[in-house]
Amino acid sequence: MWATKNAAREPWVPDGVAVATSEEIERLCGSDGHQGICGEVAPFRYADADALLRLRPEPLLVALDQVQDPQNLGSICRSAECAGFDGVVIPERRSAEVTPAVCKASAGAVEHLPVARVRNLADFLADAKAAGVWCYGADAEGTVPFDRVQWAGGGVVIVLGSEGRGLRPRVAGACDALVSLPIRGRIGSLSVGAAAAVLLYAASAGGEPEIARS
Amino acid sequence: MWATKNAAREPWVPDGVAVATSEEIERLCGSDGHQGICGEVAPFRYADADALLRLRPEPLLVALDQVQDPQNLGSICRSAECAGFDGVVIPERRSAEVTPAVCKASAGAVEHLPVARVRNLADFLADAKAAGVWCYGADAEGTVPFDRVQWAGGGVVIVLGSEGRGLRPRVAGACDALVSLPIRGRIGSLSVGAAAAVLLYAASAGGEPEIARS
Repeated sequence: MWATKNAAREPWVPDGVAVATSEEIERLCGSDGHQGICGEVAPFRYADADALLRLRPEPLLVALDQVQDPQNLGSICRSAECAGFDGVVIPERRSAEVTPAVCKASAGAVEHLPVARVRNLADFLADAKAAGVWCYGADAEGTVPFDRVQWAGGGVVIVLGSEGRGLRPRVAGACDALVSLPIRGRIGSLSVGAAAAVLLYAASAGGEPEIARS
Repeated sequence: MWATKNAAREPWVPDGVAVATSEEIERLCGSDGHQGICGEVAPFRYADADALLRLRPEPLLVALDQVQDPQNLGSICRSAECAGFDGVVIPERRSAEVTPAVCKASAGAVEHLPVARVRNLADFLADAKAAGVWCYGADAEGTVPFDRVQWAGGGVVIVLGSEGRGLRPRVAGACDALVSLPIRGRIGSLSVGAAAAVLLYAASAGGEPEIARS
């Protein structure tokens, strides 16, 4: 562990930390976004996606279809952790991975929230459905308004696509229902981080049974 | 108006645009975040806060108490425009203003959504209450869960504080009720942009009348 002379004076920094200049810490951690402290940690350990489906009887999960911006991945992980979700599932390819930038954007949420990688997201959604977990895709053209879904009464996977392109057809087709957020203004698109926050909190609040599960 | 040689070929770029290098455009617009086009526009025109309260019988407004990060201001304007809100109110001092960075972060929402500046946010909330508009402050310690508020049936101002510090006491005291979002995880704080998206969509969806207005 390394710290600048100033940071090393903080009471929570252990004795015997190596003192380094700010520039040395920048080089060590590969970012100028540090705050004067740098430590060696083990690589991020991804969770097992099947285990997430069996974590508890009614798991709440988020699946991200090719979200490539680390800020968006981090911000969605932060909202998911706060909303009490059990984990996040991302595809192995064409997705942002859990990097230090994602960890920072998540305000540390990825240290508590399991993140799993899967080879094929549509196949994972099929497994989720087989396990009795409902898959709701976020889609501007979705037929069910988000506030008319009966979220409570079973596990849920909320599936979000990348900003701009949305869900790929095979992923959308693997969902039980496509859920929309009303867009009442003129710019026409909510950010994926904002859409995620609205849907995560709608799902974790339970919702009213106006659209019952059949 | 200036455009790079490549951008000038786009069919929507008017004839007779001045061709410039990417570096010249960077200098003209004061940012390397341009996409090859730059034009002169009038300064941003702020709206009148009192007029926002009288725009329509039940206005939906957002007030931001010293939100200083341009990305957060832009992102909240984007969500507000999408959710069908009528405007955003910010204090004159210690707040991000509407700059090109805010406009970009808002995905252009500030071109459609009125933004007003007020000298004193608590005084504005008193005016809103006098006009029959309900002021709901977002507060982690709030006594009313967000999904138990009867949002429909009157105008609403949603009041959000800066990330980290939250609402100032006088601003919190000027609200009709303090509304909380449940934090079920361990990191303990949702981003202000995510909290805004959840509350804006809860308010614009109307909600269930479990907590009736009295």
